[in-house]
Amino acid sequence: MATASQASTKVDLHRELARQLRADSIRCSTEAGSGHPTSSLSAADLIAVLLASHLRYDWSKPKDPANDHLIFSKGHASPLYYAMLRAAGAIDDPELMTFRKLGSRLEGHPTPRLPWTDVATGSLGQGLPIAVGEALAAKRPLDAPFHVWTLTGDSELSEGSIWEGLDHAGHEGLSNFTAIFDINRLGQRGPTELEWDLDTYAARVRAFGCDPIVIDGHDLVAIDDALGRARRAERPTVVVAKTVKGKGVSFLEDKEGWHGKALDPEQAKQALAELGAVPSRAFPTIKPDPWTPRPMARPKKPDLATYTAPLATRKAYGEALAALGAARADVVVLDAEVSNSTHAEDFKKTAPDRFFEMYIAEEQMIAAAVGMQVLGLVPFASTFAAFMTRASDFIRMAAISRANIRLSGSHAGVSIGEDGPSQMALEDLAMMRAVFDSTVLYPCDANQTARLVALMADLPGISYIRTTREKTPIIYSDGLDEFRVGGSRIVRGGGADDQVAVIAAGITVHEAVKAADSLKDTIKVRVIDAYSVKPIDADALVDAVRTTGGLLIVAEDHWPEGGIGDAVLAALADADVSGELVRFVHLAPRQMPGSGKPAELLAAAGIDAAHIAAAATELAR
Amino acid sequence: MATASQASTKVDLHRELARQLRADSIRCSTEAGSGHPTSSLSAADLIAVLLASHLRYDWSKPKDPANDHLIFSKGHASPLYYAMLRAAGAIDDPELMTFRKLGSRLEGHPTPRLPWTDVATGSLGQGLPIAVGEALAAKRPLDAPFHVWTLTGDSELSEGSIWEGLDHAGHEGLSNFTAIFDINRLGQRGPTELEWDLDTYAARVRAFGCDPIVIDGHDLVAIDDALGRARRAERPTVVVAKTVKGKGVSFLEDKEGWHGKALDPEQAKQALAELGAVPSRAFPTIKPDPWTPRPMARPKKPDLATYTAPLATRKAYGEALAALGAARADVVVLDAEVSNSTHAEDFKKTAPDRFFEMYIAEEQMIAAAVGMQVLGLVPFASTFAAFMTRASDFIRMAAISRANIRLSGSHAGVSIGEDGPSQMALEDLAMMRAVFDSTVLYPCDANQTARLVALMADLPGISYIRTTREKTPIIYSDGLDEFRVGGSRIVRGGGADDQVAVIAAGITVHEAVKAADSLKDTIKVRVIDAYSVKPIDADALVDAVRTTGGLLIVAEDHWPEGGIGDAVLAALADADVSGELVRFVHLAPRQMPGSGKPAELLAAAGIDAAHIAAAATELAR
Repeated sequence: MATASQASTKVDLHRELARQLRADSIRCSTEAGSGHPTSSLSAADLIAVLLASHLRYDWSKPKDPANDHLIFSKGHASPLYYAMLRAAGAIDDPELMTFRKLGSRLEGHPTPRLPWTDVATGSLGQGLPIAVGEALAAKRPLDAPFHVWTLTGDSELSEGSIWEGLDHAGHEGLSNFTAIFDINRLGQRGPTELEWDLDTYAARVRAFGCDPIVIDGHDLVAIDDALGRARRAERPTVVVAKTVKGKGVSFLEDKEGWHGKALDPEQAKQALAELGAVPSRAFPTIKPDPWTPRPMARPKKPDLATYTAPLATRKAYGEALAALGAARADVVVLDAEVSNSTHAEDFKKTAPDRFFEMYIAEEQMIAAAVGMQVLGLVPFASTFAAFMTRASDFIRMAAISRANIRLSGSHAGVSIGEDGPSQMALEDLAMMRAVFDSTVLYPCDANQTARLVALMADLPGISYIRTTREKTPIIYSDGLDEFRVGGSRIVRGGGADDQVAVIAAGITVHEAVKAADSLKDTIKVRVIDAYSVKPIDADALVDAVRTTGGLLIVAEDHWPEGGIGDAVLAALADADVSGELVRFVHLAPRQMPGSGKPAELLAAAGIDAAHIAAAATELAR
Repeated sequence: MATASQASTKVDLHRELARQLRADSIRCSTEAGSGHPTSSLSAADLIAVLLASHLRYDWSKPKDPANDHLIFSKGHASPLYYAMLRAAGAIDDPELMTFRKLGSRLEGHPTPRLPWTDVATGSLGQGLPIAVGEALAAKRPLDAPFHVWTLTGDSELSEGSIWEGLDHAGHEGLSNFTAIFDINRLGQRGPTELEWDLDTYAARVRAFGCDPIVIDGHDLVAIDDALGRARRAERPTVVVAKTVKGKGVSFLEDKEGWHGKALDPEQAKQALAELGAVPSRAFPTIKPDPWTPRPMARPKKPDLATYTAPLATRKAYGEALAALGAARADVVVLDAEVSNSTHAEDFKKTAPDRFFEMYIAEEQMIAAAVGMQVLGLVPFASTFAAFMTRASDFIRMAAISRANIRLSGSHAGVSIGEDGPSQMALEDLAMMRAVFDSTVLYPCDANQTARLVALMADLPGISYIRTTREKTPIIYSDGLDEFRVGGSRIVRGGGADDQVAVIAAGITVHEAVKAADSLKDTIKVRVIDAYSVKPIDADALVDAVRTTGGLLIVAEDHWPEGGIGDAVLAALADADVSGELVRFVHLAPRQMPGSGKPAELLAAAGIDAAHIAAAATELAR
């Protein structure tokens, strides 16, 4: 039990720290000439108490596995975040003043260029779901003792992804998770939908399976009590804090028109005087109790199957995942309630403690994967490729987070058949190619799929594998160790007398092979399996252009924009070989497909063997 | 007050209709050999009572503005949906048996190829938010008397978008909106997260501002009562119905392993015998009371401003919207809580009753736009271009819905400056180009922006305009009526002696102009403003290739993949001109940007005037 004077000392410390966080938030944003000081001020008391008395973090060892985790879901409160780093002694005052300047690690919104920052935030509604992923990984399989904290704004509570996150926190009983809602009533352009209706926020939190603690977010004693209760709770907790935007500076408090605006130097001077700011300093913080993760078994080479009979590449994906799971303990798998379609269920059967059912919540699935890789795990996340688009913004942000995650999209293209266009991914290659530093793979047979999945486990950045619903024949029985990122394979032709080259991937490789075989007595067709769509094998493309005298066909089960056709043309242009490209025929769906049998739909889309053969015949004429 | 015998007759009718809906759901899916009969059976009683006694719909006049609206958010229950159309007399039995066959209007999931179908569903969690959009438009500005109904599954209730939808229904007090939750406990691969926890569903509904009515979804009297109360309620209502998947057929009821599986003919025979199926027939339905919409003022030509001073294109967007709003009464505007940044607020000032604040819920924003265009309105929806990715799956589905919606993404590219990469759209062109039948526009000055916005109002399909944060100089003072979809403009050079062509759009047009002007004494540079990114002006590109002897530069503020560079190469290949392309330099960001001033970041990304001039000099050497 703390004595009255200890309590008073503690409150004084919190008050001093909050004052400094406010002052530094204003100082750095005024120096930058932009930023969000008022959104920082509303949460300064919450963060002061958290930093000084609840967050267990060794700021000199950001990678200590015992450290708590803290994600600013409201990334625009970066002045407060950086002021906190300054108060923790992680950065110094001169660096704080580089905020938002070219080359500074202190960007407009936090990114992992800073070693204390787990992930990039700034697209609202993402930090909380990522924190849920960290807490989930901590609970199992890591069995880690740390607590995960996340600070959200109130505007972002209108994003559905927040409720996906709390739903999962509640469902999984994540007692190691605490969200702090900074309910400051004002959004960017005026009042939020719920303003200060704390009861409704609390009811929503409760209905989604978490325990709300409603407080005045400027009452330092109440904050201290709430954060302590949250940490000790046996349930996931949300501290719903009523705050005032711009708190602490009279001309900013609860005022509209101040969102995302820095104070000018004169205003800042007045604000600092009001705050009674003193030179900023480092404050004492709490280190975690030492903890060493359970050692992981040394990874083995996965025991991949070799197939001879036709098999869907999605099934080979699942079996390769299972082999990976058996070979290494850091692989985790997430799926959006379709694991019997993506075949991620094969992993679940062999490593159920490392399989995460995310139900139909693709955004939460990607967020959880991002959170898990922060902790050193190797996540694979799967759903229908069409529904991967649901998480497009999360994948975009994962790239800014420099996250290493592996995605699998099944049921690609019109070849899925009867289910119709809502289930057909026809834009996923465009989406995934346009992700910074991504790898995009699209295998055509089970053996190739297994080897590419194994490669993905060691790939940095965001990698994506596109799989097919239908069973496809085995193309590769040898050279299975030669598949590589940036590679391709010639599956028909390959001689210096090839007359036409067909570039295909996935399902269209089989159509191209049939076309080449049907023409074998009349036209020498080279079929290139461009299974690595990004990076694409430019050398193989250049060779195909030179050998054929510039006669190329691309056949792909994807809209014409942004897929393999665009990738091929860009690679040739980049290699300065466009000028040798005499004819380029791009076979791709150009009308909205309906339902039908896979073969009927491939034909209707103009990407089946007959269309490829006709195009080759036309080119070779 | 109904007499006992009338009530009994009514229940008998509902029972007969439900029996037929079940039988026809089985018959058509067995005939197709695929589909979701068990997910249809769980909701058959709900839909029988709705169709016979609550839905006011003239099935011979699907476009009657007085009709109620019904969206199957659980689109995979299409057998039930089509069985309902059959029972309503909208289609006949032979057509029902074409389900899922090539060329049939009865696709695996419903699409608006059927005149009774408002929108495509099949990506879960979208139908409900679209229904909210319809109800919102009906309430204002249309003041329409119809009711909007939507049927959801329970698996899809884990999508955050459902809660965005209910949040908006509650916030706007949409008494004309009723959702029916078909809580059948089983998802695709096993039990749902909440199974039959109806209390939790009800608590969530209540917390999000709607009134739950919890019933046994197979009690025909309870259903009738609930739907009647829902229609009369003064609040948005959700009927939370406990149901049994496969209900009515003993070997299907509440059984795992039957999701998305058709019965084989023998199983179907047994099921039909159990149901006591009789030949299917048309049932009586209820027509709406006649209603004629308030006549709209005849549209006028919008009074667009002509600018001379530098202005951000996002501001010109807002002002053009306001002019459109004044000129025609069917234009509505939605924004995701950033209307003071996108400048959609300019419309709000002139037509507040047609402005919809969607708060930070981009998925709900797009869904609402899709719902509103069903009712003949002309929606424009805006947010930061980076956050448009949040709604990628909704935009994809909008294309399958053949929706006519107009999107505006502001703050494109690294040129936004200090806010950093989370706020920079660098993949939006890739995303929007890969939308079926889309139009993608990217203006560089205020006058051009205004004219393109005016054109968008009359465009079919999904159109997108990308705007810039920073003020940009005026490029165009004449020929303002010549901007068109598929057009381009030459802003420097244009003669037969041009040595190099730079293709730019938006912010890079200004950089290209500066580059061309800096080189004007040494190299003749043609600058093409490719403001229509899709469709792109192939003739202008071909002419540039031929004039310059194949020396092109593309400079764009977008990742290298999927944007203007890819569009240019694809157009040249399609025109069979690739072979004349001697050198192609693609200037685009290739490293993850940080914060900095706009000019610094353009330079760091290699897309400023200096880099363009250097590339042109190199090419012309």
